[in-house]
Amino acid sequence: MANLEEPASKRRRISSSAADMQSAITQPGSIKINVTGAYIIDHEDDDTPPSSSSSSSPSSSSESPEQTYQHHKRDIRLPNHTAVVSHVAADIGGSLAKVVYFSRENEHAESGGRLHFLSFETDKIDDCIEYLRSLQSRHKLANGAKATELTVQATGGGAFKFYDRIKERLGVGVQREDEMTCLIMGLDFFITEIPMEVFTYNDADPENAAVYQDVRTDPYPYLLVNIGSGVSMIKVSGPSQFQRIGGTAMGGGTLWGLLSLLTGARSFDDMLAMADKGDNGPVDLLVGDIYGEGMGYEKIGFSDRTIASSFGKVLKRKREAERSAEDGGGLSNGDPNAVKPATNGSETADGPPAGVIADGRMFKPEDISRSLLYAISNNIGQIAYLQSEKHDLQRIYFGGSFIRGHQQTIHTLSFAIKFWSKGVKQAYFLRHEGYLGAVGAFLKRRPANWGRRGSVEA
Amino acid sequence: MANLEEPASKRRRISSSAADMQSAITQPGSIKINVTGAYIIDHEDDDTPPSSSSSSSPSSSSESPEQTYQHHKRDIRLPNHTAVVSHVAADIGGSLAKVVYFSRENEHAESGGRLHFLSFETDKIDDCIEYLRSLQSRHKLANGAKATELTVQATGGGAFKFYDRIKERLGVGVQREDEMTCLIMGLDFFITEIPMEVFTYNDADPENAAVYQDVRTDPYPYLLVNIGSGVSMIKVSGPSQFQRIGGTAMGGGTLWGLLSLLTGARSFDDMLAMADKGDNGPVDLLVGDIYGEGMGYEKIGFSDRTIASSFGKVLKRKREAERSAEDGGGLSNGDPNAVKPATNGSETADGPPAGVIADGRMFKPEDISRSLLYAISNNIGQIAYLQSEKHDLQRIYFGGSFIRGHQQTIHTLSFAIKFWSKGVKQAYFLRHEGYLGAVGAFLKRRPANWGRRGSVEA
Repeated sequence: MANLEEPASKRRRISSSAADMQSAITQPGSIKINVTGAYIIDHEDDDTPPSSSSSSSPSSSSESPEQTYQHHKRDIRLPNHTAVVSHVAADIGGSLAKVVYFSRENEHAESGGRLHFLSFETDKIDDCIEYLRSLQSRHKLANGAKATELTVQATGGGAFKFYDRIKERLGVGVQREDEMTCLIMGLDFFITEIPMEVFTYNDADPENAAVYQDVRTDPYPYLLVNIGSGVSMIKVSGPSQFQRIGGTAMGGGTLWGLLSLLTGARSFDDMLAMADKGDNGPVDLLVGDIYGEGMGYEKIGFSDRTIASSFGKVLKRKREAERSAEDGGGLSNGDPNAVKPATNGSETADGPPAGVIADGRMFKPEDISRSLLYAISNNIGQIAYLQSEKHDLQRIYFGGSFIRGHQQTIHTLSFAIKFWSKGVKQAYFLRHEGYLGAVGAFLKRRPANWGRRGSVEA
Repeated sequence: MANLEEPASKRRRISSSAADMQSAITQPGSIKINVTGAYIIDHEDDDTPPSSSSSSSPSSSSESPEQTYQHHKRDIRLPNHTAVVSHVAADIGGSLAKVVYFSRENEHAESGGRLHFLSFETDKIDDCIEYLRSLQSRHKLANGAKATELTVQATGGGAFKFYDRIKERLGVGVQREDEMTCLIMGLDFFITEIPMEVFTYNDADPENAAVYQDVRTDPYPYLLVNIGSGVSMIKVSGPSQFQRIGGTAMGGGTLWGLLSLLTGARSFDDMLAMADKGDNGPVDLLVGDIYGEGMGYEKIGFSDRTIASSFGKVLKRKREAERSAEDGGGLSNGDPNAVKPATNGSETADGPPAGVIADGRMFKPEDISRSLLYAISNNIGQIAYLQSEKHDLQRIYFGGSFIRGHQQTIHTLSFAIKFWSKGVKQAYFLRHEGYLGAVGAFLKRRPANWGRRGSVEA
C-alpha cells in the first residue's frame, strides 16, 4: 500500500511534546486537526451556497444539471485550522461513496477552513473519481506547483474493489484504511469534538425533537450501529479498542431494494417522502386485527396498533379481492379508501407502472413505504438493543447513510430502544451520520506537512 | 365462559391417586390422555387415506373439490386411549385456524384412536366452523343421542374475535384458553410424550437431515420461538412457568405478504417451491460484491457468499437497466441468465403477471423468493439466539405454521443458531410444528367423562 510520506512523518514525530506522544500512542497515525471553535454550518440557514464559499471547492455547482453527487448540507467550520491539508478521504460502500475534504477559507478572508461532505452512488464511482481529480487540480492551483500532491485516503469495500482504478486515474498514492477503525475514529471525533453534532430524539415534541448533546470526553463503552446497505454493530471499549459483535443483512439496501420493486419510486427521497404520507394500517396485521375490539392484549403490553405482522394483511386482502372478482367480475378494490395511486413518473417506456400498483391496485405505495420503513427500523432497533444487553452497553449510537436525517426513521429507532429497554437505554444520532468512516479515514492520515504541526496546535 | 362439565369433574377428582394429584397440580385442568404406545402415522407412507380411517371423521374427503382445509399428513395414533372425548380444539391465528380432534378407531377394530390435525385459512373461518359442526354431528351419531355434546376449546386471537359466531353457529359451550399457556402445554406434550416428533437438522446429510430426538422428561428451561404471521418468543422455565420475552413482527405474514406482491404466487406451496429453485445471488448484495475478489473479509469470518445486504443488489441493477435503456433503447435485461419467468398461472384475468415480473423483468421470482426466505429466517434465527443469550437458555424450539416442514427454512433457522452461537446452541424442530397451540387447547379441557379416567390410565 502506497504511503509515500509516512517515513518522513515518523522521523518528525521525535520532536513531539509529551501530550502529542500520548495522543499518538492512543491514536497512532492520526492527523492533528485543530478543532478549537469548530462548529457546524447548516447551509439551509446560510446564504452562501457551499460550492462558492471556498476557493478550493471544485467548480461544479450544486445546481449543475450534470451533478451526480449530493452535497451534505452541514459543513464543519474549523476556524483555527490553517495548515495545508494534502489529502482527501473516500469511504466507498456497497451503495454510496462518501467523500470528505478540507478547504481553506482564503477567499472570504476568514481564518481557518472547513470540512466538506459529499456522497456519490457507488454505481457512479467514475463520477466520484472525476470529482477527486477536480479537487486535485484545485489543490495544485491553490498551493502552487511545488505543493505536495493531493493523495487519497480510502476505506470501505470499494477501497479494495476500485483501488487500481483510483490509483491509475489520479496518478497518486491511495492509502487504504481499515473500515471499522475509520468508523470508530470518525465517531469518536464527532462525539468528543463537535458541538451540536450528537442528539437524542424527544418524541414528546416532534417539532423540536432533536435534543443536542454536549461533547463527551469519555464516551466509552458504547455500541455503534452503522446502517448502510447492511448493518454492522460494533462494541467500542476505548479509543481504538473495538470489536464487530454482529449485524444484520436487513439494512438500507433491503429497504430501498424492496421499495424500488414495490412502489416504482426512483430515488431515496421519493421513498422517504412517500413513507411520511403513508399509514401502515392497511398493510400490516395489527394486534387489534387479530383479537378484535380491545380484548386481552393489553395484558402483555400491546396496544391495538401494535404491529403483529409486517405486511401480514397483504395476502388476506389480495385473496378477498380475488374472491370478490370471482363472485362479481372485475378485480375490485379491496379498500374503498385506497385510491389508485399516482404513478409518480414510474412508468417505464415499455411497461405498466411498477410493482404492486400494476398488480393488486389495492395497496398505496405510501402505505407500503411506511410499513417497510417501520419493519426494517424496528428490527434494527431490536437487534441493537439485544446486542447492547449481551455486551452490557448503555449507550447506542446510530450511524450510516440509511438514516439520512429522516425523522420517521430516527423516531422508530429511538422508540425501539426505549421500548425494548423499558426506557433504560438511549439511542444517539449524529448530524453527519453517513460520514463516520470517511471522516475517520480523513483523520487517519498523517499529513505530509506533519512538521508544520506546531502551527496548528490549539 | 361456558364450561358446563367442570364442577362434575372437580368432584370426581377426589378419587385420584397420588401421582394423578401431582399431575393435576402441575398442570391444573389438564385432560389425562393415555399416550402409552403413541406414535406418528405418516400418511404418505400409509395406504389408508386419513378421512376414511375413522368413523367419526367427517365425510368430506381430501380429494373433494370444495375442500377448504389442509389435512396435516401426520395423525398421532393413541392405541391405548379408548374413552370418549367430547371436545375439539381450535387455535385461530392471524392467518390460519388449526383444528385438533380425537377419533376412535372402531371401524377397523383397532384399539384406541387417533388425533387429527387440520388447518383452515382464518379468512375462511366459516368453513372451519362448518367443519366443527360436521364433527359435532358425527360425534352424536357415534355416541348416541344421550352423549355429551361436542364442545369447543378455542385459543388464539380468533378465540376472541369469532367467539360469538362459533358459539351461535354450534350452539354449544366455547371454552377460551390463554394462547401462550396452550402453546407451551402443546409443546411440552410433544417433547415429553411423542417419539419421533422432535428433530434437529444435520446439514452434513441433506438427504437424511432430520435427526429425531428421544422424548425428554425434563426439557426445562428452553426457548420457544413460535413463528406464525408474527413471531413470539417465550421463555419456559417449568411446566406452566413461562414468560413472553419478545418477538418480531417480521414473520410468516411478512414473507407471504411480500412474496405475493413480488412474485404473483398464489399459494404458500408455490412460493416455497420457487424458493427451492432460486439463487439469492442476483438479488442480495454479497460480501464478495462489495470487496471484489477475495480481499480482507475472511478476517471477520465472512465468505464471499455472506449476505451483506438482503435485496441490496436490486436498486443497482434496476438503475443499470435504466441507464442502458437510456443509452440504447429498450429496457434491457440486466442479467443474461435471467430468463423471463414462466407466469405460473399467476396472471389475473384482467392484468399482467404480478409484481416485479411486470416491472423490472430482470429479477426471477425464484431468486426473490429465496432471498426473502433467507432474510426472514436468518433474522428470526438471530433474534432467537440473542434472546436465548439474554435469558441464558441453551435449547431453542421452533414452532408455528410458518415452517411447514420446509427444508430450506429449517436449514436456515438451524444454521443461524449454529452460526451465532458458534456451534454451542442447537435448534429443535417439530413434525407438528403448527399445532402446538391447538394441541395445548385440546389437552387443557377437563373432559366430561373424567370419571372414566381409570379405564384409560397406562
